[in-house]
Amino acid sequence: MTLKGKVLVAQGGGPTAVINQSFVGVVLEARKYNEVTKVYGALGGVEGIVNEDFVDLSQETEENLLKVAATPSSGLLSTRVKPDKAFCLKVFEVMKAHDIRYFFYIGGNDSSDTVRIISEEAKNQNYDFVACHIPKTIDNDLVHNDHTPGFGSAAKFVAQAFMGVNLDNRALKGVYIGVVMGRHAGFLTAASALAKVFPDDGPHLIYLPESTFDTKQFIEDVKETYQRYGRCMVAVSEGIQDKDGTAIITKLSENVEKDAHGNVQLSGTGALGDLLVKEVKEKTDIKRVRADTFGYLQRSFMGIVSDVDQTEAREVARRAVQFAILDKTDGTVTIQRVGDYAVDYVLRPLSDVAAKTKHMPAKFINKAGNGVTKAFLDYCRPLVGSDFPQPARVRAPKVAKIINK
Amino acid sequence: MTLKGKVLVAQGGGPTAVINQSFVGVVLEARKYNEVTKVYGALGGVEGIVNEDFVDLSQETEENLLKVAATPSSGLLSTRVKPDKAFCLKVFEVMKAHDIRYFFYIGGNDSSDTVRIISEEAKNQNYDFVACHIPKTIDNDLVHNDHTPGFGSAAKFVAQAFMGVNLDNRALKGVYIGVVMGRHAGFLTAASALAKVFPDDGPHLIYLPESTFDTKQFIEDVKETYQRYGRCMVAVSEGIQDKDGTAIITKLSENVEKDAHGNVQLSGTGALGDLLVKEVKEKTDIKRVRADTFGYLQRSFMGIVSDVDQTEAREVARRAVQFAILDKTDGTVTIQRVGDYAVDYVLRPLSDVAAKTKHMPAKFINKAGNGVTKAFLDYCRPLVGSDFPQPARVRAPKVAKIINK
Repeated sequence: MTLKGKVLVAQGGGPTAVINQSFVGVVLEARKYNEVTKVYGALGGVEGIVNEDFVDLSQETEENLLKVAATPSSGLLSTRVKPDKAFCLKVFEVMKAHDIRYFFYIGGNDSSDTVRIISEEAKNQNYDFVACHIPKTIDNDLVHNDHTPGFGSAAKFVAQAFMGVNLDNRALKGVYIGVVMGRHAGFLTAASALAKVFPDDGPHLIYLPESTFDTKQFIEDVKETYQRYGRCMVAVSEGIQDKDGTAIITKLSENVEKDAHGNVQLSGTGALGDLLVKEVKEKTDIKRVRADTFGYLQRSFMGIVSDVDQTEAREVARRAVQFAILDKTDGTVTIQRVGDYAVDYVLRPLSDVAAKTKHMPAKFINKAGNGVTKAFLDYCRPLVGSDFPQPARVRAPKVAKIINK
Repeated sequence: MTLKGKVLVAQGGGPTAVINQSFVGVVLEARKYNEVTKVYGALGGVEGIVNEDFVDLSQETEENLLKVAATPSSGLLSTRVKPDKAFCLKVFEVMKAHDIRYFFYIGGNDSSDTVRIISEEAKNQNYDFVACHIPKTIDNDLVHNDHTPGFGSAAKFVAQAFMGVNLDNRALKGVYIGVVMGRHAGFLTAASALAKVFPDDGPHLIYLPESTFDTKQFIEDVKETYQRYGRCMVAVSEGIQDKDGTAIITKLSENVEKDAHGNVQLSGTGALGDLLVKEVKEKTDIKRVRADTFGYLQRSFMGIVSDVDQTEAREVARRAVQFAILDKTDGTVTIQRVGDYAVDYVLRPLSDVAAKTKHMPAKFINKAGNGVTKAFLDYCRPLVGSDFPQPARVRAPKVAKIINK
């Protein structure tokens, strides 16, 4: 039985460096099938669908699509709206009006929940329809996925940023704190460990939301590292929490901003970094203490992308179209690691992934809770791709002193 | 007359992405000459010289040197010490003890002043000696130079960062403020303008230390831009000042940190960005307002480098060695633009450059003081090199609405 009609593709949530690879993957694959009458794109995620802000992607050249694929951030624009049931019904009404029969939504766990609700509504109404969630998130926090498209490129950015800042901090010594995105999952912050090449390279300390952040222990860790290396590089997740699960950033300010999901705003402010700098300055006698908050640079930087991530983001979307058109099954396409390094794409029920969060497993975090294990490095290294840079050091022998001998 | 003896090379001040190209340029060129008995490197700038922390770079393989050249930040480490006369005399005593006859110091305007003092002392003592300053600074603020090594790569980073964040801000609309390094000179912040490709791309507003920053006018500018585009991207120099020359950041806090030069600490804190966000939130009804401070990422990022900058950083150092060994003249090697695009290297007296600061010329800044001119874009474009990325956009036609028509 063939299901003839239009394909609709949309992007939700925060952008990534490769989310357009997935969107273009859907378009290129969908245009191959006779069942597909047109390929529409919604501008602005589910909000765009409700507003009928559609573009006809059947009228895009392959040349331009390939250029868009290589461009970071959401080419079809995005939304932070978290749709409730009523909103999802409106979305569905618009789809019916436009004879949309295949829906592909590229996003994180909130987006997969949206797809789940719409899919159920279609079944309720006996409307022939296939809905598929395509994973993306720099946070790497989707369950049942070995990793998610977008993570590898963001991980590469974070690792290369720490590589450069480590060399900077080695030249002009002090304490350096880099604040990395990640509210509940520490994968992206942990990726900073890939920056270490020589034994004394930073980051020397890595703090993740999965471990309790104890300010006293943090100061002890910094002091010890500083004594050993004459400097100290720290990577810290924006979402670090105390033993009661309270975000450290909320201890700073009574006026924190909350988003549509009731979450405290963590990005787009240097507050956590500045708070930690103040702690180190007050509790130690170290003079030069600096913090940078990597902020929005890390999720859609133009020019830093993992080739492995690019390929997978494209493939996962092509497979989604194949599952939908050839098998007519709703679901979410997950990425499974089947070798070292090889992946396969497996369709799973939407409810498996929807609205759930994956965390760093215990085997990836060291016992002290201030670093990562070799298991994590082995896991992460293939994801940053083939052209990961390698710093070099002067290794010339020392010259004997004459005056100060 | 030949002057036989050792060459000493050192690096001062803040690192750049190509400062090792200059250091390696000195080593590779100097090792060609019979006059040169050894090539030493001082670890930690002039501090390293006083401490006799020398390495024998005659014992470095060319393979490793080329890898170090491609690595950002100061491979010979650096210092923030601003030497006085007494310190310079100590530096000179150590050089004499080690039979250093050629001294190459890679740095900004403070470093060139150090070279000037040492050069004068050598003349006073009738010690046969050639001292040469090799320019570097991401701030691009050395007089008598069309531009300086390090600027092109930092400019490329800033432009690519804004390119990505512009795409992000287009997908999820709001006000975005990116704080860029630059205390007195706005060149690096101005380079953000290279991120604009489509007419509505950001940054829409650019504020430089060379123009007076008026908070009221800033709010008006943001409101107007937001009304036009539904979003607003701002690039701002960390060193922006009010009409009395007071840094805007000092208005925030009574506890600002000062460095050895008596300057207020601007980098390694998100304070200015957070202050401007607060202003916009208080004075407008725009909800989503974010700031990132690019911080140390921009001066030694691993993996973002301008090939033009790399080549020039190597060449300017090679020319310095040629001037010193073949002409035996003290000086600073300046970069002159002699074509579109072509450069030449000209030796000038140290006093021409020492301790002076170049600013953005008026012709590079728009009349409103919130943007740059085409003259600046023409000036800056060749400096970011040949592989500057190009974003693409979906340009598919809109679909007619059915429900909301």
